[in-house]
Amino acid sequence: MDFIKFFSEILESIKSEKPVIHHITNYVTVNDCANIVLALGGSPVMADDPNEVEEMVSLASSLVLNVGTLNQRTAESFILAGKKANSLGIPVILDPVGVGATKLRNETVKNIIKDIDVSVLKGNMSEIKYIYDNTGMTRGVDSVDDSMDGGKEIALNLAKRLNCIVVITGKIDIVSDGEKTFYIDNGHKILSKVTGTGCMITSLIALCCGTKYNSLISTMMGVMIMGIAGEKAYEVLDNEENYGSFRVKLIDAIGNFKLEDIKKRGKVYEG
Amino acid sequence: MDFIKFFSEILESIKSEKPVIHHITNYVTVNDCANIVLALGGSPVMADDPNEVEEMVSLASSLVLNVGTLNQRTAESFILAGKKANSLGIPVILDPVGVGATKLRNETVKNIIKDIDVSVLKGNMSEIKYIYDNTGMTRGVDSVDDSMDGGKEIALNLAKRLNCIVVITGKIDIVSDGEKTFYIDNGHKILSKVTGTGCMITSLIALCCGTKYNSLISTMMGVMIMGIAGEKAYEVLDNEENYGSFRVKLIDAIGNFKLEDIKKRGKVYEG
Amino acid sequence: MDFIKFFSEILESIKSEKPVIHHITNYVTVNDCANIVLALGGSPVMADDPNEVEEMVSLASSLVLNVGTLNQRTAESFILAGKKANSLGIPVILDPVGVGATKLRNETVKNIIKDIDVSVLKGNMSEIKYIYDNTGMTRGVDSVDDSMDGGKEIALNLAKRLNCIVVITGKIDIVSDGEKTFYIDNGHKILSKVTGTGCMITSLIALCCGTKYNSLISTMMGVMIMGIAGEKAYEVLDNEENYGSFRVKLIDAIGNFKLEDIKKRGKVYEG
Repeated sequence: MDFIKFFSEILESIKSEKPVIHHITNYVTVNDCANIVLALGGSPVMADDPNEVEEMVSLASSLVLNVGTLNQRTAESFILAGKKANSLGIPVILDPVGVGATKLRNETVKNIIKDIDVSVLKGNMSEIKYIYDNTGMTRGVDSVDDSMDGGKEIALNLAKRLNCIVVITGKIDIVSDGEKTFYIDNGHKILSKVTGTGCMITSLIALCCGTKYNSLISTMMGVMIMGIAGEKAYEVLDNEENYGSFRVKLIDAIGNFKLEDIKKRGKVYEG
Repeated sequence: MDFIKFFSEILESIKSEKPVIHHITNYVTVNDCANIVLALGGSPVMADDPNEVEEMVSLASSLVLNVGTLNQRTAESFILAGKKANSLGIPVILDPVGVGATKLRNETVKNIIKDIDVSVLKGNMSEIKYIYDNTGMTRGVDSVDDSMDGGKEIALNLAKRLNCIVVITGKIDIVSDGEKTFYIDNGHKILSKVTGTGCMITSLIALCCGTKYNSLISTMMGVMIMGIAGEKAYEVLDNEENYGSFRVKLIDAIGNFKLEDIKKRGKVYEG
Repeated sequence: MDFIKFFSEILESIKSEKPVIHHITNYVTVNDCANIVLALGGSPVMADDPNEVEEMVSLASSLVLNVGTLNQRTAESFILAGKKANSLGIPVILDPVGVGATKLRNETVKNIIKDIDVSVLKGNMSEIKYIYDNTGMTRGVDSVDDSMDGGKEIALNLAKRLNCIVVITGKIDIVSDGEKTFYIDNGHKILSKVTGTGCMITSLIALCCGTKYNSLISTMMGVMIMGIAGEKAYEVLDNEENYGSFRVKLIDAIGNFKLEDIKKRGKVYEG
């Protein structure tokens, strides 16, 4: 598959169409999610009241459901917006932040998966394992499974079961649509020292999927853009513990992102 | 009218009085709004529960009502705080973010305008057109009306109708009190690549209006400060797509803002 | 008491244990609180729904209760999470932001103090005076008591009365456990020009207290780290009004924080 051709078209499509990405997301990282979408060329919109999410998602090209700081009001909004998105053929990207940590998270994510056709499910190993077979362990919202062992099988089987694309983020990211599985070996460990980099990956996936290109490739592209931007931002730091500066330069790298970056740095291979 | 004399007095007044600006605003851009108010010399306070907004606004010099991520709870707070502000003569600055996109937004903004004497209404062309005659089109929260055609007439008539100051932001900003109309030709298109620059203009207007100077001039000053800061921040960028750095330098430019900046760069003319 | 030895152990403990710090906090400064905890080596988690806070705090090493943008839903969560933390021996750090300004804040803080065994109470002089004897004056969330007069007596007596550690932040910070009182003379006035620096101190205290070391020393260390980071960030600014850059460099300074910084700059003395 000539990925570069598709990546090129997706990138151009983002710039020309400015897809609107509706987020129902947490209040911790929402500003970074909005800025990363703007930086790559999209148009973010955040709205989470049950009384308006159906109308808002109708104006959008994709929908992010991020349960990071969910509450009973937004749990209702997830379902309303998701169903509306499904009825309109708008892709739904689910980020089950911290699933496994509390019953509220577990039930909310379970309900979303039951009631909504999710296009892409993205989590760290702890979160995905919890959804896969209840074995994921969690400490708050950070993964405690640093090992990616068994990741391919989990991603592949879960994608098949849920009929969606599954992304497991980690040292090497795994993307599967239930038939093919790809590994993406971009990124840098410093990304885990800034809050919201996981949420931002989800927003970038949503942005790429908002172009209506093949969603497997769009998803891979979203994951890869974040990884490459992380590498570039890290390389221009004066000091590798300058996490405040890193966050700024990460958005800079997204703003400057070009197809050349993928050609030069992209590391994707089929597993 | 000797604007510079007034601008000078407003700026000094902010530094000496540190006006408290009560915001009922969205969770996407709230941190930037707080920081921009602090950077120019004010004191921001955010509180949005119906059980405390009346008391909180009583301590403030102006009130921002920003409907960016409204919900039923904050919709009630808008009205309670607005009425209290009216009873105390505290200026109310309304930012009808995304009005036209959903019924909840439309009704909330309609109720605010019906029940509250708004001092300043600030929106992009889509939002203002929606309030003016229901013709504004919207894609989420971004304006789709890049043209400012007819802007003067709309601002002038709407200001007359609502008995308030109307600001339409765009390539050239329009400010009218229903009698006179002014154009402000500062700013840079990069401002639209960072989330919350519209919200930040509203906060700056509120800060200038919190000094009790003539509200038309205070409003113009708030708009102009943001535009000039955007120009200065853009000019010191290493790369024009460094949107992360731009956001940082925008706050720097507000922190360093001096009357000289207006004298040197301010572009305001009567329309 | 050999503080340096303890400070060294606390710092190492943070790096090796990555304590999870559960925050129920405001949406204005939450992102900075998360990033500062990550930068020093902890793992922040934010969750505020009454239906999940008890489970979430059970996974944590300490709990922050910050009432900055409280509402009726989170007021319930404060109590639920605090009681659970008490039952598990998890330290509770209370930041009574803006207490004195509204009845909702006053009653919420009163209820927390009545129902929860707070480990550390941290506020500015206005907030602490309000809790001490209802005399604190407030303008929104900023202290109007620049003087630290009587601070030692207030901190000491309040610590005794509440059986907790009391921190009064100001030009010189005061920390008391009801028996001993210490002054910390680090920091820089520029810290008051960025929103959330008070909240971030609270998060750092919680992180240091999350290591299970003596809580008086842990609290002093959290306060001192913020002060020293503020000094270092200020010193590398190109311009002392670059508040946007200061905020970035503050996180950088926390990321680079070493025991040497305390040895070289720490100014603590018993009062």
